[in-house]
Amino acid sequence: MRSAVVAVGSELLGTERLDTNSLVLTKLLEEYGLGLDRKSVVPDSRPAIVRELQYLLEDHDLILMTGGLGPTEDDLTKDALAEAVGVQMELDPGVLALIEHRFQKRGMRMPKTNERQAMIFPGHRTIPNDRGSAPGFHLTVKHNGKQRDIWIFPGVPYELEGMIQAELEPWLKEQKRQSRHRRVVKVTGMSESGVDERLKPFYDKYTGEPITILASRGEIQIHLIADGPIEVASEKLMRMEQELRAIFSEKIFGVDSDDMESVVGRLLSSRQETVATAESCTGGLLSSRITDVSGSSAYFLGGVVSYSRESKLYMLGVDPAIIDKHGEVSEQVAREMANGARRRFSTTYGIGITGIAGPTGGSEAKPVGTVHIAVASHRGIEHARHQLGGPREMIKFWSTQIALDMLRRQMTTAS
Amino acid sequence: MRSAVVAVGSELLGTERLDTNSLVLTKLLEEYGLGLDRKSVVPDSRPAIVRELQYLLEDHDLILMTGGLGPTEDDLTKDALAEAVGVQMELDPGVLALIEHRFQKRGMRMPKTNERQAMIFPGHRTIPNDRGSAPGFHLTVKHNGKQRDIWIFPGVPYELEGMIQAELEPWLKEQKRQSRHRRVVKVTGMSESGVDERLKPFYDKYTGEPITILASRGEIQIHLIADGPIEVASEKLMRMEQELRAIFSEKIFGVDSDDMESVVGRLLSSRQETVATAESCTGGLLSSRITDVSGSSAYFLGGVVSYSRESKLYMLGVDPAIIDKHGEVSEQVAREMANGARRRFSTTYGIGITGIAGPTGGSEAKPVGTVHIAVASHRGIEHARHQLGGPREMIKFWSTQIALDMLRRQMTTAS
Repeated sequence: MRSAVVAVGSELLGTERLDTNSLVLTKLLEEYGLGLDRKSVVPDSRPAIVRELQYLLEDHDLILMTGGLGPTEDDLTKDALAEAVGVQMELDPGVLALIEHRFQKRGMRMPKTNERQAMIFPGHRTIPNDRGSAPGFHLTVKHNGKQRDIWIFPGVPYELEGMIQAELEPWLKEQKRQSRHRRVVKVTGMSESGVDERLKPFYDKYTGEPITILASRGEIQIHLIADGPIEVASEKLMRMEQELRAIFSEKIFGVDSDDMESVVGRLLSSRQETVATAESCTGGLLSSRITDVSGSSAYFLGGVVSYSRESKLYMLGVDPAIIDKHGEVSEQVAREMANGARRRFSTTYGIGITGIAGPTGGSEAKPVGTVHIAVASHRGIEHARHQLGGPREMIKFWSTQIALDMLRRQMTTAS
Repeated sequence: MRSAVVAVGSELLGTERLDTNSLVLTKLLEEYGLGLDRKSVVPDSRPAIVRELQYLLEDHDLILMTGGLGPTEDDLTKDALAEAVGVQMELDPGVLALIEHRFQKRGMRMPKTNERQAMIFPGHRTIPNDRGSAPGFHLTVKHNGKQRDIWIFPGVPYELEGMIQAELEPWLKEQKRQSRHRRVVKVTGMSESGVDERLKPFYDKYTGEPITILASRGEIQIHLIADGPIEVASEKLMRMEQELRAIFSEKIFGVDSDDMESVVGRLLSSRQETVATAESCTGGLLSSRITDVSGSSAYFLGGVVSYSRESKLYMLGVDPAIIDKHGEVSEQVAREMANGARRRFSTTYGIGITGIAGPTGGSEAKPVGTVHIAVASHRGIEHARHQLGGPREMIKFWSTQIALDMLRRQMTTAS
C-alpha cells in the first residue's frame, strides 16, 4: 500500500511554518506497518490542489490531507476534492445544526460563511470533530479500476489528533497490516562515509532490508527496521544490533533516543562517580549539556568558564608559567584545567577544554578550530587535540561531544 | 515564474525530522519577489525522484532540490536527475582532487565510495562546496520548449547556506524581479496575545498590509513587509517601525537577525563594560549563550557553574549562613552569587541565577520553575523572582533570556 500526505495552506509555503501534522500521521501509519512514500505542501489554490490530487491518485492507495477546511473563501480543500474525484457535495442539516450549536454555546451567532463547513460528500463517511467546527471525511473511490482511500482532516493539530485517534486508527487496525519496529544504533567519532564503508558486509548480508544511515549532530545513526509480530521483530533487531556492535564496538555510544549527555549521566550514576568542568572556548556549553539531564545534580558538581587568562589562574589554579610558555590554547593548559576542575570541585573526573572557536583569533600555528581536550582522573590525564571545521556554534558543539565521548570511554574501558 | 522545492531523503518521511531547508530557500526567494508554489519530500528512491521531477518540469520554471548528494548508495538525486532530463554524467578530475584533498587535510584516506560525488553534468554549472565534499549543480534545460532552471544542493544546512549565498542569490538578483523587503521587530517580556492586543490601532491603520506576529523562543516577532524599490520600501518600513517603538518602547530589544545575546554583547562592547556569571539551575547555558557571539571575549571574562552547595561557598564566596537560613534557591543566594561573580572576575556586572529546573526537586513553597535572578553592578543589585513553566530545557532557556534582558535594560536605562 502506497501512502502520501498532503498539507494544504499557503502559510505552510512561507518562511516560518512547517507542516508538523505529517509527523503525527506518519507515526500512526508506522505503528500499523505502513511507511509514508511522499509528502507535499500545496497552496490555498483550487487548481493546485486538484492537480496534486490527480497526480497522487495515479499510484497512491492512501491519501491523507490536512488543512483548508475552515469557513473562509480561501479554504478550498473540499471543493478541489469534489472536482478531482467527480463527487457532488450537499448541505447536511445535521452537521449544520452541530456547528450552529457550537456557536450558541458560546453565546454567538453562527456567521453565514460557516455554512460551507456543513457541506458533505453523500455516500462517504463524515468524521465528527468534537474539538472544532469543521468535520473531516473519508472517501473511498475507484481510480482507473483501483481503490483509493482519501482522508481529509482539519489543519489544527489538536482537532486532527482527536479525529485520527477516533477514526483513522481503528480503520488502520482493520487493514490488518503487520506492525513495524525500529532500532536506532548510534555511532560517534566516525564520518558518515567511514561508517558506510565498514557496513559493506552487513549490507551484503541484509540485501533488500531497509537499513538507513543518517548523520545527525555529533552522531551517525544506523536505522534498522523489522516488520512483523513484536517477538519475532525484536529478536531480529537484537541480532542485527549485536552484529553492528561486533563491527563498531566502543564507537557505538547509545541506541534509540539516547544522546551523549544522557549516556554519560547513566554511567556516572551507576558508578557513583562525579564530574566537574573547566571550559574556555565552549563557554559553558559542556556543563549546560551535562545539566540538560534531569537528576544530573547527583554527579555534576560544578564548573568554571575561564574565558580570561586571569580566571584560569585564580579560579582553576593554572600555573602562569605554563600559559606563558605554551599559550592559553595548548595541551598543557587543557591538562591543567582538567586537573584544576577535579581538585577545586573534589570530583572523580575533571574535564578541561581550551581552543579557538573562531571566526577570529586563529593563527598559522593554531588555526580556528584547534581544540585541546583533557580528562583527569585518579589514573592520570588523557589528552586529545582536534582540528574542527565549521562555524563557531559547530566547533563549540563538537568540542563538547568529543569531551563527553572521552569521558564515556574512560568509564566503559576502565575496570 | 512558478517555483518548487523538493527535499530528497527517506529520513524526512519518518516520524522525527522535517525539511527545514525549504524555509531558508523560501526566505531567499521572497527577498527577490518570488513565492514558493509547492514543496514536497520524496524518498531515497530513484523512480520516486524521477517521477517527481517529471511532474514538476511540466509547469514549474524553477526547481530547487536538496539532499541525496552524499557518497552512499542511497544518495540518488544526481542519477535520478540525469535520467529525468536525459543528461549523461561524467567524472570530473578537478572535483575529485578537491574531495581527496578534504580528506587528506584531516589525515584521512578518501573512501572509494566518495568518487560518486565527483560525477558532474557536463555543460552545466557545478557549484563548489567549501564546507563539505558534495558539489551542487545548476542545470538549465528545455522541457516542451520551455526553459527550466534546476538547482541541486546538499541537504546539510550549513553547506546549503554557503552555496545559495554564493550562487543562487546572485542568480536571483540577475532575474531583476520586483523586490520584497522585510523588517522584523522583536519584543520580549510579553505574551503573543498581549502583543496582539496592543497592536489593534496599528492593525487598523494598516488594514490590508501583510503584518504577521510570530512567537519564537523567548521573543515575539512582528513581521513587516513592503514591496517595491528599496528606497521607498525602506522609508515605509522605518516609519512603521517607529510607530511600533512608540507602542512597545523598551520591550523591543532588537530587529531582524538580532538575538538577545548579540544585543547585550553590542551594548557591553560599546560601553566598554564586562560581565561574569554565576549559574545554578541554568548549568552554564547563560555563559554558553553569551559566548555564542563572536568577539565575546572582549566583555565576557568568565563564569562559575555552582551546582553543589560547596561550590557556591568556595567558588563564589556565598555566606553559608545565608544558604542555611534561606535555602539554595532564594533571593538572597541569587544576590550573593551575582555579587560573588562580579567580585571574583572583577567585572562591571555579575549575574546570578538559582532555581529549580525540574522535573523533580520542587516543593510547595518552591515549585518546579521557581527562579531567582540577580544582576549586580556598582549601583547595587537588582533582583527578580519568576515562576516559569514547561520542560527542563525551557525553564533553563527562559531563565537565561530573562537574565540577559535584565542586563540589557540596566544598560539602556542607565545614564
